[in-house]
Amino acid sequence: MTDPIKSLFLGPKGEQSQLLEELIRAALDDHVRWRRHFHPADPSPIACSVDGAHDGLRNEVIKNNFLQLLNRLHASVPVFSGRYNAHMLSEQTIASQAAYFATMLYNPNNISSEVSPVTTVLEAEVAEQLARMIGYDPHRSWGHLTSGGTIANFEALWIARNVLYHPVAVAGAAKQLGVDLSVSLPGGGRARARDLGLWELLNLAPASALDLVENLRGAAPREVIDKELRERSLATLGYQDYSRRLAADFGDTLPPGVVLATATGHYSWEKIVRALGIGGNQLILLPVDEFCRMDTLALWEEIVKLAQRHVPIMACVAVCGSTEESAIDRFDEIIAVRAMAERKLGVTFHIHVDACYGGYAAAITRGPDHSRQSAQQIRAALGDAEWPDEGWVRSICALQNADSISIDPHKLGYAPYPAGAFLLRDRRARELVAVDPPYLAAPTGDGSDTPFLGRFIFEGSKPGASAAAVWLNHQTLPLDNSAHGRLVASTISAAHRLHRELGVGLDEPFRVIRLPAPDLNIVCFLVTHPWLTSVDAVNEFNEALYREMSPGRNTRPDYLISRTRLTSPAYDGAVPKLLTAIGNDATSYWQKRGTEGIVVLRATVMNPFAAGERPDYMSGLVGAIRVAAIHCLQDFSPAERSSLICA
Amino acid sequence: MTDPIKSLFLGPKGEQSQLLEELIRAALDDHVRWRRHFHPADPSPIACSVDGAHDGLRNEVIKNNFLQLLNRLHASVPVFSGRYNAHMLSEQTIASQAAYFATMLYNPNNISSEVSPVTTVLEAEVAEQLARMIGYDPHRSWGHLTSGGTIANFEALWIARNVLYHPVAVAGAAKQLGVDLSVSLPGGGRARARDLGLWELLNLAPASALDLVENLRGAAPREVIDKELRERSLATLGYQDYSRRLAADFGDTLPPGVVLATATGHYSWEKIVRALGIGGNQLILLPVDEFCRMDTLALWEEIVKLAQRHVPIMACVAVCGSTEESAIDRFDEIIAVRAMAERKLGVTFHIHVDACYGGYAAAITRGPDHSRQSAQQIRAALGDAEWPDEGWVRSICALQNADSISIDPHKLGYAPYPAGAFLLRDRRARELVAVDPPYLAAPTGDGSDTPFLGRFIFEGSKPGASAAAVWLNHQTLPLDNSAHGRLVASTISAAHRLHRELGVGLDEPFRVIRLPAPDLNIVCFLVTHPWLTSVDAVNEFNEALYREMSPGRNTRPDYLISRTRLTSPAYDGAVPKLLTAIGNDATSYWQKRGTEGIVVLRATVMNPFAAGERPDYMSGLVGAIRVAAIHCLQDFSPAERSSLICA
Repeated sequence: MTDPIKSLFLGPKGEQSQLLEELIRAALDDHVRWRRHFHPADPSPIACSVDGAHDGLRNEVIKNNFLQLLNRLHASVPVFSGRYNAHMLSEQTIASQAAYFATMLYNPNNISSEVSPVTTVLEAEVAEQLARMIGYDPHRSWGHLTSGGTIANFEALWIARNVLYHPVAVAGAAKQLGVDLSVSLPGGGRARARDLGLWELLNLAPASALDLVENLRGAAPREVIDKELRERSLATLGYQDYSRRLAADFGDTLPPGVVLATATGHYSWEKIVRALGIGGNQLILLPVDEFCRMDTLALWEEIVKLAQRHVPIMACVAVCGSTEESAIDRFDEIIAVRAMAERKLGVTFHIHVDACYGGYAAAITRGPDHSRQSAQQIRAALGDAEWPDEGWVRSICALQNADSISIDPHKLGYAPYPAGAFLLRDRRARELVAVDPPYLAAPTGDGSDTPFLGRFIFEGSKPGASAAAVWLNHQTLPLDNSAHGRLVASTISAAHRLHRELGVGLDEPFRVIRLPAPDLNIVCFLVTHPWLTSVDAVNEFNEALYREMSPGRNTRPDYLISRTRLTSPAYDGAVPKLLTAIGNDATSYWQKRGTEGIVVLRATVMNPFAAGERPDYMSGLVGAIRVAAIHCLQDFSPAERSSLICA
Repeated sequence: MTDPIKSLFLGPKGEQSQLLEELIRAALDDHVRWRRHFHPADPSPIACSVDGAHDGLRNEVIKNNFLQLLNRLHASVPVFSGRYNAHMLSEQTIASQAAYFATMLYNPNNISSEVSPVTTVLEAEVAEQLARMIGYDPHRSWGHLTSGGTIANFEALWIARNVLYHPVAVAGAAKQLGVDLSVSLPGGGRARARDLGLWELLNLAPASALDLVENLRGAAPREVIDKELRERSLATLGYQDYSRRLAADFGDTLPPGVVLATATGHYSWEKIVRALGIGGNQLILLPVDEFCRMDTLALWEEIVKLAQRHVPIMACVAVCGSTEESAIDRFDEIIAVRAMAERKLGVTFHIHVDACYGGYAAAITRGPDHSRQSAQQIRAALGDAEWPDEGWVRSICALQNADSISIDPHKLGYAPYPAGAFLLRDRRARELVAVDPPYLAAPTGDGSDTPFLGRFIFEGSKPGASAAAVWLNHQTLPLDNSAHGRLVASTISAAHRLHRELGVGLDEPFRVIRLPAPDLNIVCFLVTHPWLTSVDAVNEFNEALYREMSPGRNTRPDYLISRTRLTSPAYDGAVPKLLTAIGNDATSYWQKRGTEGIVVLRATVMNPFAAGERPDYMSGLVGAIRVAAIHCLQDFSPAERSSLICA
């Protein structure tokens, strides 16, 4: 018997459409009733003034255009089906769909509680639930929803930069105000801020940097201190004047601050560092190991090199669920490397985890009473003999030590777009990016800590409906391994089964070459055959397989997958084993490194119906790959190829 | 008889709920049918595996939590009613609500046509409709939807910065490649790029800057040129190294580039310049006139001063519908000032119009055949004897000369959140911010110009449902003055009536002091009385009035408005007339300038039901203000006040 969690979704045949319809109708009825309670004696601006014929005509126009839309939508991709394992999208829960619609009728804008008294509270509740899942202290942390992962990641680096340079402003202000500030150093011990050089000021732990300004508070009225800090901030001065100021004050501006990131990180990091003015050159991609996880030894070596050149590190960005292969970096090791850098090198930095895809996996580590469970307890709870292992659990538990985290409810949270989330471990840091608008009310003291969210976040207007959708999901499917965690784990389990079956699923002489079993639920592999005598030919063949299993202009395959390229140097750590398995032509591959890479097929197994044996979508997918491989191979017969090459 | 356009909305009593319900049910039925056509023979993962009792229990959990949500939503603000004139939100159309829901069921992500083959096309259609409304050439322009205005504005400045510095990179690459490039100068005539200094390179018109790179294309293979340009770009180098490079290459880095903006602009500009690394100090706010429009003489004087100091201007940001008072800058004059700066000073810059609020007003200038109409024709079409005047129409028509524009469909487009839009006049500029992700397919040549939108936009995942909602709005209510323009004009007409009635609506000795009649539909005013003998007292009284007409913890007033503060120096051009009208204490006001400002009440008249006489919401609002003023005055009686002051 399969898990009843599946009935939380509409279903590949709309099995639960009655429930969704019932909820939607209840929402509409209830909303209309609510409207009618507001000044029922007012005449109606519609009923009393529109003549029926004209009204009917208008309705016809709407209906006809609406039918056109419905018809056009039929060309969509079938993301609702367990047969769809292509990109990172899938079925959403009925609860979140209904909540989104119900709330949309009220049109709340979560920029401010003045216009969304209900949904800003729901947003704060949702952020707190995510923070608790991660292990953040809800009294010290802070979070909010964003339109998606890119904005959440952007906010992380925006805040990290402000925290990095903050001690320089505080030290300058303290000097100006004649205050002697004591500060804790990353390597232990304390020093006077005025005795620190630029390099030391740029290497205070985020928490120390934020403590520092609190120590300044007694020295002068708040406005005076704020003004002194503002005048010395990068945010106010801009990079060009800030660099000049550093050169004048310290005789040296140091090289530009850098961002270290797992090489498999999302391409939006490139956009973000360019936009922030940090510069693409300052994004240092760290190599990955064969599991596509950050090579933490390489991280340490990079830090040592940077320290020697006195290059400040703005942030280290690790990934929980990489976009292409759902790899989870070893956060426990990354935290340990930072601790070592603090002790041995006096170097520290902000750690951000891009958990846009994989963040909800943290629910797997929580028991129904929300306590953390050991790997063994989790395996028992999930009924899985092998997964997760100790390392996986240690890594996820270490998320609570990251300075900031981004998590997308619109991915493994099974909520509609748009729903990203940004979580900050030490909420004091948000003050460094705060901007006050003139026209919205000051805090009302109504108990809500952030009545005007717009003060701290980058975006402005945003749908309260999104907060309600995520909230109802968390209510009906709590963030522990009996509920939401169990759902996510079921997709991981299905992905692992797909991984196993791919290992034996194709008949000789076809061979499936796989990346290691994934940390989450994305399976990457390629298919080869003795006729394919070069990496180029293997790439070409797998591209053909991908096309065969992708929607075309007029075709929709029975099973859908996607593909990616493991390019150099990002994947140099993962590629050698694949090359060995392909068994030829490694030399020519390494000569072309960077340009071509290796094409791998990619199955994103996130559909709630992926697990289970009736229908057995995983075996079905392997079968579909088998058929497609035989079909595609026809174009790659040795005779065929030589004629193609001659032509 | 009122306009049948009103029946496009659900109505204050849900008068049209039957239509919405019908559409929603049709969408759900149609969607479920569509699902069932994909492999109908597959067994159901829900029906075949869940036992009924458990299933029923799950449904109960969902329903109960959903009812809790519906109940909490009742504490929302009544934005659907013509009695709500507080913030910038209102009723949305039934068409957009239904389209959003219908599309959400398919869960498309408009980052790429691979996962949203339908809605990416709808998004392109919507952007083209907006471009045509503005007067952009759809073959040369480009646009897309964003999560909101902040991101659209951010993209504008992100692109403007890249365009500004682009000629420096092109000139450097040309020198490296030994190419002699000819370039057109803003003051007329042409020069060789190699002969230009840094100041001249930073003062090429955006189109010339983009032409320049095309002239380089023949000189070397594309990859070589791209590499040379990339290595010289601010995006790659980051500000710190870029400044060093300028100093090394030109002996001078020039002062930091600045952004000029109407002082009444949105506070998000401060966030944006800080985040981009431009710096808050480089945001120069231009004073406004008594209409709260940019003082274009001051713009000219600022440009002259900046030119003397060789300060490059990254962009000038004008506003179409300021957040607080819906003022529309005179874009025709701003364009003329830039032309003069090009001719007389050899200075040019990117012009961006933040039309997030007011952009849809451009539909008022379009006749049903989409041709531009004169002010006289528009007045005839709207049946308005006085509005709009020639200046208003000239300004709106000049929008077509702006280099970029942001418009929010979720404001006067009457679509649900999130729906912002960014329009770019010369689409070539988007290439300067393009980033390619490794894992999504290259352009498919399927006729769509941007199959992978993620390449050019800042955000990643985004709801296709939003595109469908805006699309259905544009279908059912085209962007001309017989349809959407007429709806927007009706709110402006209502606002003008409110403005007139406020002038005579309160009994002596109360006096209403108003800003001039608004350019769109936000009416700002204050109420005074002889007992209020200082600006402070007037401010305090109007704050009390605002509280009286705002929702409290357990109260909901009959009519709702908002308030803002006209602070110094932003509003120094608009304040003197108000001070004169208040009639006292101007000296003490100017002594406190910047901190206190003048509190004005603000009625945002954007509800589709605002116009019309049954119910007459505008007269009702004036009446409610009258009652509230009498009520509030009790706390301001001279006796009362002196006792308060003593306490």
